[in-house]
Amino acid sequence: MGRPFVHQLRVRYAECDPQNVVFNAHYLAYFDAALTEMWRAAFSGGYRGMVEQGLDMVVAEATCRYRTPATFDDLLDVAIGITSLGTTSMHSVLAVTRGDEPVVDGEMRHVFIDLNRRQKAPIPDWLRAALEPWVLPSGASPRPPASSRRA
Amino acid sequence: MGRPFVHQLRVRYAECDPQNVVFNAHYLAYFDAALTEMWRAAFSGGYRGMVEQGLDMVVAEATCRYRTPATFDDLLDVAIGITSLGTTSMHSVLAVTRGDEPVVDGEMRHVFIDLNRRQKAPIPDWLRAALEPWVLPSGASPRPPASSRRA
Amino acid sequence: MGRPFVHQLRVRYAECDPQNVVFNAHYLAYFDAALTEMWRAAFSGGYRGMVEQGLDMVVAEATCRYRTPATFDDLLDVAIGITSLGTTSMHSVLAVTRGDEPVVDGEMRHVFIDLNRRQKAPIPDWLRAALEPWVLPSGASPRPPASSRRA
Amino acid sequence: MGRPFVHQLRVRYAECDPQNVVFNAHYLAYFDAALTEMWRAAFSGGYRGMVEQGLDMVVAEATCRYRTPATFDDLLDVAIGITSLGTTSMHSVLAVTRGDEPVVDGEMRHVFIDLNRRQKAPIPDWLRAALEPWVLPSGASPRPPASSRRA
Repeated sequence: MGRPFVHQLRVRYAECDPQNVVFNAHYLAYFDAALTEMWRAAFSGGYRGMVEQGLDMVVAEATCRYRTPATFDDLLDVAIGITSLGTTSMHSVLAVTRGDEPVVDGEMRHVFIDLNRRQKAPIPDWLRAALEPWVLPSGASPRPPASSRRA
Repeated sequence: MGRPFVHQLRVRYAECDPQNVVFNAHYLAYFDAALTEMWRAAFSGGYRGMVEQGLDMVVAEATCRYRTPATFDDLLDVAIGITSLGTTSMHSVLAVTRGDEPVVDGEMRHVFIDLNRRQKAPIPDWLRAALEPWVLPSGASPRPPASSRRA
Repeated sequence: MGRPFVHQLRVRYAECDPQNVVFNAHYLAYFDAALTEMWRAAFSGGYRGMVEQGLDMVVAEATCRYRTPATFDDLLDVAIGITSLGTTSMHSVLAVTRGDEPVVDGEMRHVFIDLNRRQKAPIPDWLRAALEPWVLPSGASPRPPASSRRA
Repeated sequence: MGRPFVHQLRVRYAECDPQNVVFNAHYLAYFDAALTEMWRAAFSGGYRGMVEQGLDMVVAEATCRYRTPATFDDLLDVAIGITSLGTTSMHSVLAVTRGDEPVVDGEMRHVFIDLNRRQKAPIPDWLRAALEPWVLPSGASPRPPASSRRA
């Protein structure tokens, strides 16, 4: 049974706005950075290697729910869990936390594309197998339940 | 009956990624830029004036559905329609188009906050009145239907 | 005799940092946006057209001197003057102003490259001619002298 | 005798442009991120703690010389050496490298400001002492000489 992949990052000054919090758009860039690290953990060559083989992925849909603002110099955990791997698309849930605090919850849908033919491509078996450790059981959250975090 | 507010902008080189398209996160910054222009059109002083009066707004939720990639130097229309003005929150729908082509559809929920008390604030009557021109009739889309655009 | 090319832009919220001013790096993006507009004014097809012909340019050196901070929603003029067009390189001076106030002064050096051969390329005659209107006389500044502005 | 402070970072996809290289402006954000880490290493509380004490710093001048492009997923070392600590200002030299390869060389001048009085502030003795390990001997480079790197 899979569990979320977690990437830790530090909020940069340039990512904070005059409200002194991370500007909302940057979380999508954090999601992308975490996904790149998941790809690196998944197989040799990582995202760059996949693209060199002619396979790429594009974001088809993304949602962010902002819970608590993060601010300059915060250390954030970005957790990603895969909720489904369809024929050509991947659904994932994301949770950005600062220690125990929820910062942003998100969902993304990516579509795989064949770079030569510029059209949708089926997820190859080797990639499906490589992502297996982070495919969540149905209904699971990328964040541990509050009760377990308090334990 | 209201209609969407439209702000036009030009895609900058720095906003495009190695896939040669606008990186997904930047559309949230485009939404924000368009909202600022809507505020300017709505009342004297605009967003900056509202903040000086001690009222601000934060993004509580945002969704983007990516339809067609936009690329460097494209001229984009960012349309915003308000779908509801609650006591302390505003729901809006957004549509980024390049000519007739849909580029990104979005939804946002903003919450108003009192800057002195750092908590939710009711939308004042003067602001509610000022935003009236862009409150869409129920079920309306920020994009005109394809049939009417082709006409 | 040439004079500076001027592009006007509005400071976006996402470009301002917790000091409530434009984060220093963004001025280089403003320079780039202004250069793209100069290219558009220079010849049909603009920067994108030049790239499609196999010619591109890269930044070899850039300097910013920060004079007065700009803040959210400010309307800025970005002026560019070309100070020399060498065989394969272009030197330019830049001045960002808010009304009469100097905000940032800059200098850039670009090098032209042949996209097919991935090496330096001579500036073609047609481009040299097209940029002529903005080649400053020796020693000229992209900002008018303070005395003339006060007049 | 001081030596440069080095911060390592990974190039994000969103920081690369259609030329498939890091967009020139982002190096200034990398400089800022490295400086924040130097501050963290220098004293307890780091940059955020300094600001809470009413002392801040602003960039007065910045220069980048672009040597070799960096690309997506590259692991970069950002080295900073302080070349002078004046009464109210700090000069530094920076070198971004990818392994042995020079990527960008830079110079910055920061000015310290008193946040309450909104004017220049002398660098306090405690900060001067804390930064001592990274004050380079006169004429030193933030990059080791090529000969030593090849050894």
